[in-house]
Amino acid sequence: MEGRKLIITIPLLLFFIAFFSVPPAAFGRKVTLPRKRMPQPCMNLVFYFHDILYNGKNAANATSAIVGSPAWGNRTILAGQSNFGDMVVFDDPITLDNNLHSPPVGRAQGFYFYDRKDVFTAWLGFSFVFNNSDYRGSINFAGADPLLIKTRDISVIGGTGDFFMARGIATLMTDAFEGEVYFRLRTDIKLYECY
Amino acid sequence: MEGRKLIITIPLLLFFIAFFSVPPAAFGRKVTLPRKRMPQPCMNLVFYFHDILYNGKNAANATSAIVGSPAWGNRTILAGQSNFGDMVVFDDPITLDNNLHSPPVGRAQGFYFYDRKDVFTAWLGFSFVFNNSDYRGSINFAGADPLLIKTRDISVIGGTGDFFMARGIATLMTDAFEGEVYFRLRTDIKLYECY
Amino acid sequence: MEGRKLIITIPLLLFFIAFFSVPPAAFGRKVTLPRKRMPQPCMNLVFYFHDILYNGKNAANATSAIVGSPAWGNRTILAGQSNFGDMVVFDDPITLDNNLHSPPVGRAQGFYFYDRKDVFTAWLGFSFVFNNSDYRGSINFAGADPLLIKTRDISVIGGTGDFFMARGIATLMTDAFEGEVYFRLRTDIKLYECY
Repeated sequence: MEGRKLIITIPLLLFFIAFFSVPPAAFGRKVTLPRKRMPQPCMNLVFYFHDILYNGKNAANATSAIVGSPAWGNRTILAGQSNFGDMVVFDDPITLDNNLHSPPVGRAQGFYFYDRKDVFTAWLGFSFVFNNSDYRGSINFAGADPLLIKTRDISVIGGTGDFFMARGIATLMTDAFEGEVYFRLRTDIKLYECY
Repeated sequence: MEGRKLIITIPLLLFFIAFFSVPPAAFGRKVTLPRKRMPQPCMNLVFYFHDILYNGKNAANATSAIVGSPAWGNRTILAGQSNFGDMVVFDDPITLDNNLHSPPVGRAQGFYFYDRKDVFTAWLGFSFVFNNSDYRGSINFAGADPLLIKTRDISVIGGTGDFFMARGIATLMTDAFEGEVYFRLRTDIKLYECY
Repeated sequence: MEGRKLIITIPLLLFFIAFFSVPPAAFGRKVTLPRKRMPQPCMNLVFYFHDILYNGKNAANATSAIVGSPAWGNRTILAGQSNFGDMVVFDDPITLDNNLHSPPVGRAQGFYFYDRKDVFTAWLGFSFVFNNSDYRGSINFAGADPLLIKTRDISVIGGTGDFFMARGIATLMTDAFEGEVYFRLRTDIKLYECY
């Protein structure tokens, strides 16, 4: 009799332990235990994008244009005081390597503006838009870009399609620039929330 | 016999308790098991909003205005090259159906700009603001809007009040447009994170 | 004896099944049961930031400037109709108290625009940028700011560094303003997702 009871009891116990174990915080909100270690990204992507700013002479090649400027600026030449107040709209090609002439795999679309008078600093809101056999969907970004610093982190605030509901960090690096007309940004995207 | 069984059972139990009590991903970050199936939204909302762009003659009715434009544009008429660089600020009525004259249930407030030279494409940052007995609070959106495509997905990046901490996807559809002055967007909001 | 044991076992089983049953949505995405109680913030921060708008005479002190305006406005004086359409870029000092002259602990960098004709209402996209021994990293914000209301909630849409992957709510309060040149915003930040 005792033996039969054990045979029933132990599998039941194991079943309950395996099936129902849930950390208490899972009821009604996300689990946010104190951080024990750096989380691992669930997706890691590296892209380059290339910005050619309209300067009055390069209409055919330009991928971006000044659309707002402070009272002391204009929309053809970046303003004094570290370009403070210049707002730029862009539609830049995204490539897999650092070559402007590589086949683009998507478009970086959005805006940036310079927001400090004493040092070059920008703020960005933009999307990576993909529509090909490798990636379909978009990744949305926002954040401050203190562009004289070697690596700058901004936020991945959302995504669609293959990047449905993405969240994470994008690290920007100025890979090259030529005067006020061209710059190339390396973008290391690490997603920490994937669906 | 009884004693031997217990000796086996107790360490096994301890092992199962230690191994299964917490999913490994739960330390310090959200549980993101590999996607098994499409998640179901926790909230589903459909709204329309109506944009009447200021064109120099409709000051009384206009709900939006061009506030930035490229060097070759101006702030009364949308620029050439697919309106590239035109930046618009708006405060549009939200309705439950596709009738501009239906009682508004909220306001769509934010900005959009056109960011491609060769095809009509926009980028949006805006909020739905509600302050009535049905809904109180706001939903915040950002993302690329390739507006010639029938349905376009943007991100719900946050929410307040009744939409506290919301995240999700909003699908935009151009429900109607009249020349350069009026357009109506159907917005299907699917929230996948609710509190 | 057997009968008595069953009487105990069956209710226990029902209890375990009812209590521990995991909602199916928990596999592969965040648990989002109907809200049972207000979640507690995992981080709570209060800051003030100070905006001095360029008005043509205060170039040395100004921390912000109008960079876009509607056709009927200009970039030195805020436009009529509740400043509708004026877009401002800012780099404002952040302080721990309400004194403009307190040592700044960071910079509030971003943009806002006024988006209603009949009442003062703004929309904000900006970052708090910290780089000192207390805080290093950034917090990113977006949302509608109906500034005549005493407290307004916007979204914390992301963070970097010490605020890695932050999400939450920021409550804005106009702590002081002087005509069209100066305003001070108290910002109560409550993060509900921390890593």
